[in-house]
Amino acid sequence: MTRITGKTRILFILGEPVAHIIGSTLLNEHFAGRGIDAAVSPLHVAPVDLPKVLATLRILRNVAGFGVTIPHKIAVLDLLDSVGERGRLVGAVNFVRRHPDGSLHGDNVDGLGFVGGLIAAGVEIRGARVLQVGAGGAGRAIAFAMAEAGAAELTIMNRSADKARELAAAVGRAYPTCRTDGGEPDTAACDIAINTTSLGMKDGDALPLDASRLAPGAVAAEVVMTPEVTPFLAAAAARGCKTVPGKAMLLAQLRAASDLVGLA
Amino acid sequence: MTRITGKTRILFILGEPVAHIIGSTLLNEHFAGRGIDAAVSPLHVAPVDLPKVLATLRILRNVAGFGVTIPHKIAVLDLLDSVGERGRLVGAVNFVRRHPDGSLHGDNVDGLGFVGGLIAAGVEIRGARVLQVGAGGAGRAIAFAMAEAGAAELTIMNRSADKARELAAAVGRAYPTCRTDGGEPDTAACDIAINTTSLGMKDGDALPLDASRLAPGAVAAEVVMTPEVTPFLAAAAARGCKTVPGKAMLLAQLRAASDLVGLA
Repeated sequence: MTRITGKTRILFILGEPVAHIIGSTLLNEHFAGRGIDAAVSPLHVAPVDLPKVLATLRILRNVAGFGVTIPHKIAVLDLLDSVGERGRLVGAVNFVRRHPDGSLHGDNVDGLGFVGGLIAAGVEIRGARVLQVGAGGAGRAIAFAMAEAGAAELTIMNRSADKARELAAAVGRAYPTCRTDGGEPDTAACDIAINTTSLGMKDGDALPLDASRLAPGAVAAEVVMTPEVTPFLAAAAARGCKTVPGKAMLLAQLRAASDLVGLA
Repeated sequence: MTRITGKTRILFILGEPVAHIIGSTLLNEHFAGRGIDAAVSPLHVAPVDLPKVLATLRILRNVAGFGVTIPHKIAVLDLLDSVGERGRLVGAVNFVRRHPDGSLHGDNVDGLGFVGGLIAAGVEIRGARVLQVGAGGAGRAIAFAMAEAGAAELTIMNRSADKARELAAAVGRAYPTCRTDGGEPDTAACDIAINTTSLGMKDGDALPLDASRLAPGAVAAEVVMTPEVTPFLAAAAARGCKTVPGKAMLLAQLRAASDLVGLA
């Protein structure tokens, strides 16, 4: 719950549609819980209007920044004054800070959030062999973030194998200490298995990978938030694996977004 | 306290500076108290930027409208698609509705708020002889609203007498049934005495008028909100007059603003 005064720092989340957006509520709770005087509202922005809206956000002096969600995460890149390394590598921005001079600095905090969730759950990423399913938007952010966090190996599986190989190669170029591969994974030999696809959200979805082959000491992690225990996590738990639900990344993501806009 | 989701109707209050704005807090409390899913944030808009900001507000589809405060109340007139009669008469707009097609309709709800406060306090305006001090922004809105509400006589006093005469003449043209005058008032002969100036906000301010000459049956009303009992109201109360504090108009103003943007 948020109290909005003339001194409150104003933020937005730009998207289309907006009805499903929960980030404003979560961020507002985050700010309220920490006594930070800031308020976030979704703004319904059509793709064609993004440049005009950003030009206006630059000149609104009580605006601290804004989140960017579907379908603007890639288009926004060309409209900013600067983009952080994570945003550049991922090729998508999901949070933007407005500096007092009106300049806009964006970055991608999705990967930070996911890695932060693993760390908070006590998962050791440094040196780990990671198997990741999915090479879409969330998958790109998570792949770069796992390599940045010190994963020793990263194997990416994807319905379109080309996309998996491409992402693996890009991560390998950015983080040469991480051996990356877009080929068939050895499920039994991984330390951390991650689902970055939407598989598990709907009843009857296929499992993202054959959890029955995971080593009992492996960790299974998930981006799907609803249900909290996906069939993938349930199967991994049945194998004796530690599991990290999609919700685990939320807190770290909120903190990272809050940091980026200077409201930590 | 406000919960902001993707379905919340978003509103703003445009001003410069914004730190003193309390309308957002009051409107948010009004909406929350009535279960209306809407949230208001101040936006710091420099005068030179007003056209650009309005052009953007037109295209944001979850925006229901916006309030307009100092210094934009007059400049905004030329940037709207339509202006209600009260706004046109007063020559200033303080609330704007955004229609789904992006068109903007503005009006002035200050006078409605003031009159609503009097009515809620049980004051009979129809047929009353009104003495008003001040011909500034608030004074203009209140003068037209008192005539619209059926005041029989309206005498306006102002530091600059020309401005008082000008406003009296404009009100008389719009509401010929109301006898208006910008000359010296007969304090003893009025039914309702209104202070529309800021006199009474600061210690040592002169009284807006000689309250000792008010008839004991008269009503003294005030736009100053802090202190709640101004020296003018205290002097009128000492004479036996009914008094209506500045805060009385708030509730009616919030309701009128809420009506205007279609969120009643």
